[in-house]
Amino acid sequence: MALVVMKFGGTSVADMDRIRNVAAHVKREVDAGNHVAVVVSAMAGRTNELVSFVNDASATPDQREYDAVVSSGEQVTSGLLALTLQSMNVKARSWQGWQIPLKTDSAHGKARIAEIDGDVLRTSIQAGEVAVIAGFQGIADGNRISTLGRGGSDTSAVAIAAALGADLCDIYTDVDGVYTTDPRIVPKARRLEKVSYEEMLEMASLGAKVLQTRSVELAMTQNVRLAVRSSFDDPNAVPAVGKDGSSSVGTIVCSEDEIVEQQVVSGIAYAKDEAKVTLISVADKPGVAAGVFGPLAAANINVDMIVQNVSADGATTDMTFTVPEGDLAHALEVLEAHRDDLQYKDLIGTTDIVKVSIIGVGMRSHAGVAADMFRELASKGINILAISTSEIKISILIDAAYQELAVRTLHTHFGLDQTGA
Amino acid sequence: MALVVMKFGGTSVADMDRIRNVAAHVKREVDAGNHVAVVVSAMAGRTNELVSFVNDASATPDQREYDAVVSSGEQVTSGLLALTLQSMNVKARSWQGWQIPLKTDSAHGKARIAEIDGDVLRTSIQAGEVAVIAGFQGIADGNRISTLGRGGSDTSAVAIAAALGADLCDIYTDVDGVYTTDPRIVPKARRLEKVSYEEMLEMASLGAKVLQTRSVELAMTQNVRLAVRSSFDDPNAVPAVGKDGSSSVGTIVCSEDEIVEQQVVSGIAYAKDEAKVTLISVADKPGVAAGVFGPLAAANINVDMIVQNVSADGATTDMTFTVPEGDLAHALEVLEAHRDDLQYKDLIGTTDIVKVSIIGVGMRSHAGVAADMFRELASKGINILAISTSEIKISILIDAAYQELAVRTLHTHFGLDQTGA
Repeated sequence: MALVVMKFGGTSVADMDRIRNVAAHVKREVDAGNHVAVVVSAMAGRTNELVSFVNDASATPDQREYDAVVSSGEQVTSGLLALTLQSMNVKARSWQGWQIPLKTDSAHGKARIAEIDGDVLRTSIQAGEVAVIAGFQGIADGNRISTLGRGGSDTSAVAIAAALGADLCDIYTDVDGVYTTDPRIVPKARRLEKVSYEEMLEMASLGAKVLQTRSVELAMTQNVRLAVRSSFDDPNAVPAVGKDGSSSVGTIVCSEDEIVEQQVVSGIAYAKDEAKVTLISVADKPGVAAGVFGPLAAANINVDMIVQNVSADGATTDMTFTVPEGDLAHALEVLEAHRDDLQYKDLIGTTDIVKVSIIGVGMRSHAGVAADMFRELASKGINILAISTSEIKISILIDAAYQELAVRTLHTHFGLDQTGA
Repeated sequence: MALVVMKFGGTSVADMDRIRNVAAHVKREVDAGNHVAVVVSAMAGRTNELVSFVNDASATPDQREYDAVVSSGEQVTSGLLALTLQSMNVKARSWQGWQIPLKTDSAHGKARIAEIDGDVLRTSIQAGEVAVIAGFQGIADGNRISTLGRGGSDTSAVAIAAALGADLCDIYTDVDGVYTTDPRIVPKARRLEKVSYEEMLEMASLGAKVLQTRSVELAMTQNVRLAVRSSFDDPNAVPAVGKDGSSSVGTIVCSEDEIVEQQVVSGIAYAKDEAKVTLISVADKPGVAAGVFGPLAAANINVDMIVQNVSADGATTDMTFTVPEGDLAHALEVLEAHRDDLQYKDLIGTTDIVKVSIIGVGMRSHAGVAADMFRELASKGINILAISTSEIKISILIDAAYQELAVRTLHTHFGLDQTGA
């Protein structure tokens, strides 16, 4: 038998009918002989409601009290799911963070997990009881309730799976897996059977919002096998997790060693929430980059891609970089305030751009992927505004108008299209 | 300075505006130099919502999970009130039952308080921090959340006051005190300045729903001085509690030693939720009463007043008693099923009755109060159907039609009318 951690998000437990559906997924695993811990979020909308109460109570809320209030949402769901399971003759009990205990640091509102004592939990599970765990919450110093930040239930699930030595951590969500790219843009997008932690991390941070980045990082460092799958599947029409923790449903996120046939490129991500800033004719001399990026960093603005052209006249150059779309106005203000120091001729900001990335651990051992990518885009007349790369990722910045063309072109070119579609 | 426990029920914390009003009441006490612990209920309607979720999840809910779910309502309010106080520059923090800890037995859903460790709470309060305590909840064996049953926040408040050795436990509610009788029936009803625990207990159990019976019992055994007062008063127009725990607002519930001028009768209560059952012509022989009340007790039906007429023919008699209105149908079924054993001629049930009681510790030392009461009712042509008495209470059963006349008549006769009204 396998020990499985199952995690269900807010839309999966939005009302009692959805909770009964979740219970049926859990019962399937129990009936197959698996040991189960379930991690649940608050019912969809509840956390937002609680947060709005908190903000109404105080303009600068004490994060410890914020945590006491908002953690109540997960407490409710854990109790309701335990009750629903019991009504289906499945032995179950709820667990709050402080009961486990799931210890965190004292960064209330965005706490990090420090230590999980799996002993009492394990004893309960081995006695045949489903452990229904309130996600998102833990206990900090001074016996205070803490929360892990929005989306923290994914992280709870992975940490619990690590503490219990689970064979699989099944993340149930509203999509049925991780795709080679967004199926709304590319109908030929294919669900990946397996994807490596590293690739998933790049995808998560580049806009494929399936899993919270922190949870993937934790799964990678703790070597927890994840599955991403849909809670909207008919619970009785999908197979249970195998005795060895194998699953034929959804996408498995695992170590790259486990992925036998590795593609060079596994997926294509895009992000529309960046903005481009260009400084025209800044002095091309040492210290100018610091003069530009120092004030932005001081203003807490995160700069992503940076391009500095080779100077044509030997005295001035153009400098282009990207910032989060929401920070554009602030970034322009900051640079305007430093006009006298920087002595640029013009300052241009635009949000009419998109970042497209190809991702794949196979790139490590394949040279020429970048050149191949650029050639393919050039053949469609797409101009590249900026480039950044990592060992397993190449990102380019292009005009927003070309987003779909670029994603589709690269998807086909790198062999990701569904066969027969 | 006084140490004051302030308790606010669900209607007093129904929304953020009401919570701000509560915070203003607390701030008044803090500004006057008092040390304060506040006990709060869930926002009005929340507990009912949570209970309906629980009942939807399971027809026979596990009371431990019921407690995990419904206790979340008080958790939310305690955090929100702490935040609101902080935003008014009053130092405050929330406390859940398990954080104090407030230990209970394991009778989940209706747990009784076993022990309160006041040490951490006292340290926090003495450091000038308002302790905002989630009422209604505690921690039972096995580290599980327990609840004290509906209305349990009153009991929490009294128990906390006892554990801290508070000078006063101020129960804020939606009425401004305890009245000699229901002002909706008798406009001349008068607010009592003081009432003894014993009298309050009789009033509470007889239908004056101001305080939960258990909380009054606990206050009596622990000698906690209570005040019943309105949370709808303007927080800045009423005086703070005095340095000695004295209060000039609302009604003080205290030991009778503290009440100097004791009336013979302090109040008049009535209860409409009883039903009368009459067995016509049952055999007048030993064992018949057991034959009637045994099966009712087995069916968990509580019998209150009992009248058995003297036998006219020496062989049969009529027997009359009362049961809770909700149990009438069941009681009649049970007796119908035993018709062959009991051999009564007829069985009559009616809900068209009311129980009226006069209450006063002064009755202990005054003979003839009952005779006086019966004479007065007779003078108005009111027929008494049954009588029961205790040391400080006389209850009579009458036709419901005479309820208001009886209450008004007795109110005037025993000198309870407001002077000048």
